[in-house]
Amino acid sequence: MSASRYTYLGPAGTFTEAALRTLPEAATRELVPMVSVPAALDAVRAGEAAAALVPIENSVEGGVTTTLDELASGEPLMIYREVLLPISFALLVRPGTELTDVKTVTGHPVAQPQVRKWLATQLPDAVWESAASNADGARLVQEGRYDGAFAGEFAATTYGLAPLVTDIHDAQNAATRFVLVGRPARPSAPTGADKTSVVLWLAADHPGALLELLQEYAVRGVNMMRIESRPTGEGIGRYCFSVDCEGHVTDRRVGEVLMGLKRVCRDVRFLGSYPRADEVSANVRPQVTDAAFTDASDWLARCLDGRG
Amino acid sequence: MSASRYTYLGPAGTFTEAALRTLPEAATRELVPMVSVPAALDAVRAGEAAAALVPIENSVEGGVTTTLDELASGEPLMIYREVLLPISFALLVRPGTELTDVKTVTGHPVAQPQVRKWLATQLPDAVWESAASNADGARLVQEGRYDGAFAGEFAATTYGLAPLVTDIHDAQNAATRFVLVGRPARPSAPTGADKTSVVLWLAADHPGALLELLQEYAVRGVNMMRIESRPTGEGIGRYCFSVDCEGHVTDRRVGEVLMGLKRVCRDVRFLGSYPRADEVSANVRPQVTDAAFTDASDWLARCLDGRG
Repeated sequence: MSASRYTYLGPAGTFTEAALRTLPEAATRELVPMVSVPAALDAVRAGEAAAALVPIENSVEGGVTTTLDELASGEPLMIYREVLLPISFALLVRPGTELTDVKTVTGHPVAQPQVRKWLATQLPDAVWESAASNADGARLVQEGRYDGAFAGEFAATTYGLAPLVTDIHDAQNAATRFVLVGRPARPSAPTGADKTSVVLWLAADHPGALLELLQEYAVRGVNMMRIESRPTGEGIGRYCFSVDCEGHVTDRRVGEVLMGLKRVCRDVRFLGSYPRADEVSANVRPQVTDAAFTDASDWLARCLDGRG
Repeated sequence: MSASRYTYLGPAGTFTEAALRTLPEAATRELVPMVSVPAALDAVRAGEAAAALVPIENSVEGGVTTTLDELASGEPLMIYREVLLPISFALLVRPGTELTDVKTVTGHPVAQPQVRKWLATQLPDAVWESAASNADGARLVQEGRYDGAFAGEFAATTYGLAPLVTDIHDAQNAATRFVLVGRPARPSAPTGADKTSVVLWLAADHPGALLELLQEYAVRGVNMMRIESRPTGEGIGRYCFSVDCEGHVTDRRVGEVLMGLKRVCRDVRFLGSYPRADEVSANVRPQVTDAAFTDASDWLARCLDGRG
């Protein structure tokens, strides 16, 4: 029953699972934790799962490189949804533990910079050791290896622990962005608040090559939301770019940007158009609305017909 | 018989007539000199002539502002051909006149800077007075008002004069460009060495407005050949732009530029696509050939269909 199965970056009890459970359709799916992002995505590629939820960007740590690289290479996949999950940690302990009893703490390496300041002021003498995941850290506390684990509060019940302190986050508005990835198919219908993702390989490393790429967006008034360079693996100085922009592939300005990129880039991988998790509608200048594009094509047709 | 009549900037015997006679179709037309560029063009607007030949640009003096302004305003007209005429002057005199007899010379004001150096060395004491046209100057020599007129050598016979000195031009490669203007109709078929002309009115006077306009060309690899600003008559600082670019409106890169301009400009007047007089083919980068545009549209169609 692959169509009813969603994989995600496991183990159970991580923020990824919490993010997945915010999707209404998750309630009717079998949710299968996988050991890694590549494993979660390969299950989709192999047809063993309909989709996979994986983290792609963290507001503190930046891009999740494994996910970016997986989407840029191998058999093509497409993004259908994104989930933005505010990240705040709870300090999970065995029931009965007091704050003064906590001498050793653990958590995923990504969690550490997000709780560093809190630790320095509240538990300056506690020793940090990294765990394979936040959930794994919780399990190690359950087993008695550490006194406390930084994880999502929701992980407490899974591991029979208690949230001693909640809402721990050094950075205000810390959040992780996750994407729901499936095999390529027609993009879902535009909602008016959409995002379009591509991976771009520059045609040649000439001066202005990156500017050319940015101009394809700028000239059609399409706002670029994120651009991240990733090595292509072909040697130092060879990059591809992971780019998100506002709008949907069926918006004419976005379609023209993609066609322009296809012409000037060595390769373009379309990663999908999908609803923005923040539900913010693009601020579309009147010059680049679908109506403006239609007016311009009609005018050109009249010029070609001698009625310009 | 308006369809068989071409008007031109007169009088007879000017460079404009010479330029008109280089067009093969001129042999089968009634060629009617008019007193001014507006008069020549208004005859076309009124349906009294099929087309008008008028000067638009001089390699020494620059744009012919009357022509630029006439094409930008009033009832729309379109350019169908251009003629590039090398300009060199002859000193026309009454038969029997020797160079030492020449004390007064005349010609069109535009001719003066093109013969100034020659005059300074060969006839340093001659007095220059301007005439309404080079041909008119020749007529005034015929009538005995001046000793010599600078005009095209071809004007000599018309006025019963002799070319005393020929091939006079201060600037090497001096040339005037003329355009054959008619009422709007379908542009002639592309030749592979074409030019497309427009008049553009900026939407708003914001910083970068002109850059936006240039980018519409640059991003589609379309070479801009000429850009000239002209006051719109709406006050100091309000301009429109007369722009020529390489290529034909039926080239996809050019069509996209025009549609882009139509979207971002307050107004665009299409002045036509026509064969380049210099017959130089555009150097089209592989990224912006019609084939590249077709490939990109096909790819986008596949993306929309889930087969990206």
